[in-house]
Amino acid sequence: MSDIYSDRIRDVPKSFIREILKVTLDPTVISFAGGLPNRTLFPVEEIKEAANKVLEARGRDVLQYGDSEGDVRLREYIAARYREKYGLDIQVEHILVTSGSQQALDLLGKVLLNEGDRLVIEEPGYLGAIQAFSLNRVQFLPVPVSAEGMDTEKLASVISTGKPKLVYTVPNFQNPCGISYTLENRQALAKILEGTSTILIEDDPYGDLRFAGEPNPSLREYLPGNTVLLGSFSKILAPGLRLGWIAANDSLIQQLVTAKQATDLHTSNFTQSIVVQYLSDNDVKKHIADICHAYGQQCEAMLASMERHFPPGVFHTRPEGGMFLWAQLPPGIVALDLFDLAIKDKVAFVPGDPFYVRGSRHNTLRLNFSCSDAKTIEVGIERLGKSIRRMDKIGA
Amino acid sequence: MSDIYSDRIRDVPKSFIREILKVTLDPTVISFAGGLPNRTLFPVEEIKEAANKVLEARGRDVLQYGDSEGDVRLREYIAARYREKYGLDIQVEHILVTSGSQQALDLLGKVLLNEGDRLVIEEPGYLGAIQAFSLNRVQFLPVPVSAEGMDTEKLASVISTGKPKLVYTVPNFQNPCGISYTLENRQALAKILEGTSTILIEDDPYGDLRFAGEPNPSLREYLPGNTVLLGSFSKILAPGLRLGWIAANDSLIQQLVTAKQATDLHTSNFTQSIVVQYLSDNDVKKHIADICHAYGQQCEAMLASMERHFPPGVFHTRPEGGMFLWAQLPPGIVALDLFDLAIKDKVAFVPGDPFYVRGSRHNTLRLNFSCSDAKTIEVGIERLGKSIRRMDKIGA
Repeated sequence: MSDIYSDRIRDVPKSFIREILKVTLDPTVISFAGGLPNRTLFPVEEIKEAANKVLEARGRDVLQYGDSEGDVRLREYIAARYREKYGLDIQVEHILVTSGSQQALDLLGKVLLNEGDRLVIEEPGYLGAIQAFSLNRVQFLPVPVSAEGMDTEKLASVISTGKPKLVYTVPNFQNPCGISYTLENRQALAKILEGTSTILIEDDPYGDLRFAGEPNPSLREYLPGNTVLLGSFSKILAPGLRLGWIAANDSLIQQLVTAKQATDLHTSNFTQSIVVQYLSDNDVKKHIADICHAYGQQCEAMLASMERHFPPGVFHTRPEGGMFLWAQLPPGIVALDLFDLAIKDKVAFVPGDPFYVRGSRHNTLRLNFSCSDAKTIEVGIERLGKSIRRMDKIGA
Repeated sequence: MSDIYSDRIRDVPKSFIREILKVTLDPTVISFAGGLPNRTLFPVEEIKEAANKVLEARGRDVLQYGDSEGDVRLREYIAARYREKYGLDIQVEHILVTSGSQQALDLLGKVLLNEGDRLVIEEPGYLGAIQAFSLNRVQFLPVPVSAEGMDTEKLASVISTGKPKLVYTVPNFQNPCGISYTLENRQALAKILEGTSTILIEDDPYGDLRFAGEPNPSLREYLPGNTVLLGSFSKILAPGLRLGWIAANDSLIQQLVTAKQATDLHTSNFTQSIVVQYLSDNDVKKHIADICHAYGQQCEAMLASMERHFPPGVFHTRPEGGMFLWAQLPPGIVALDLFDLAIKDKVAFVPGDPFYVRGSRHNTLRLNFSCSDAKTIEVGIERLGKSIRRMDKIGA
């Protein structure tokens, strides 16, 4: 029976994180493994009010089939937001609503990728993107990211030798590392891609979650013709609504709409209308500021706990936003082995391995700070520090 | 710029129906072109109550990320329904919730199809399936359907010579024809597939909408190992919720879950929970009976109007359920030409062409009866009858 499956589904890495999350269901385990927004911050009451209003005013409309492009009012909001926040002039017609921004990756793969095409991804990079693009049997060209952003020297060489179809980036508070591309890094990256036919994907699910530092321009400002923007309501409102979007040029968006239709006809009108109503009745900027405040405090708490409890030789990022930070263990400590030990100590994280397309048994790990309060973070990081010290001894 | 697109997206037929529907936005046009359930029958008030209950009781759960497999309570309902309605024993673990049953086709394509694979589709057949499977660059083997079901002689020859990977069927109240496979046809079809490795897809979005005649067994009863079942809440509750499902064997469902994750992570928990709540608080059988009653009357009205106003030589199906009927014009009358004339007479339908993967300028057309009341149907069919008579003269 196993020979009935397509070649492409065999290429998709199974989500290792899903497996890990199962281990962390034990309520005595403090988990920094998840990638979830903090549920206590969901605007449940406001969403309920919006749902009621929508069903009262336009119930039969929102429960009927809708346009593949998405609700025009939602697309107008997204266009206005790009204008206000980034000074980008994006037409409503160039925006497609998707069922979460994961679906944007699926649609871009369908429309742009042939088997064997090459594409640049960040190393380490977003597992969901690796999964979505794997369905197209592509060749990944990983380019390392550091605290400054993408390794532009490596990128330049990969672009000139590999002539990739796509470069996939998460320039703000990247998953898994929590790093952001600096202004200089963005400019250097844009210069490398300028004049090439390579398409740049700027995936920005976390951009609004800045709790420190100053925002940088969108990469699209430098590469307006080549850049595809992805966005999401998952981190600023609620992921259970499954709402994201793609902004792309006219010709590409038409192809994406065809792919969207073939994929799931359209995204729920009902959830789209709820968000439109929510945005019109509430101060979403205030709501986002509240999220940023909470995540900033939790990130600060995690960094402080790490100072206290981690042995020297553990390096880590200092995010200015988002939901994750990234740690590098002393050489010789394998994060997968640490995970087994840490689970016994009742603390969990994601070992780095699933975020790389090459190599294994890495000494890196992802820690999520969006879902735990400062007290829990202190206890969890103390446990993890102990586990690392024990590993250090085992290693020595 | 056009050479950036994938080979597969070029293969997807653009939705001709979308283009047609634009013409029918004129409110003076009576349209039998759409494929929509009747919006006046949506249980808006009940869905509002369900949404409120869900957000009050489990707001933070339903707005958070969820399982790729779908809400277990919804899957339990679906399993129970198969047991009750068809006597089929399907495990909850073998059911995957999808974002409408269109997505089920996308996922099946991803998991099962390699480029060049052959698959049997009904002729005429569901356009959305043609679109979804086209993304896999497959070779379609069309097998005609008639009032009895699939042409089993043709099917037998195609199976033995073509060795197709899949056979795609809509055995109840098929789109576009409104026909259902008879008991004998189902048995003959099962006999042909028995012992082969061909997978049978039984897509059943309309099965609950029976307003005449007796139900037939699911094809899965005859081919339990080879059959994949697809279902949808779009026609019995509301399509704007975007909820469907796949039921398949253990190994296949695991692959489908991987594909689902890579595609859009999961379907909205919020809409899933609303349906679970709706189903627990309301008499859905009574609701479905109301829909069947209305559609049955409207179908009857359309058939009666056709008797009165169509010239002899127009043949048509007599559906026992669903939302569509299918008409065949006298030889020499091209439905696309009739469409242009009929639009001037302020009546619209879908010419047959998009439902075929071969040939063009067919003399067939699809008429939707779910969205218009008997009075509107009478006026619209009278107009269409006049247009056909005028075509007849032009042709003569």
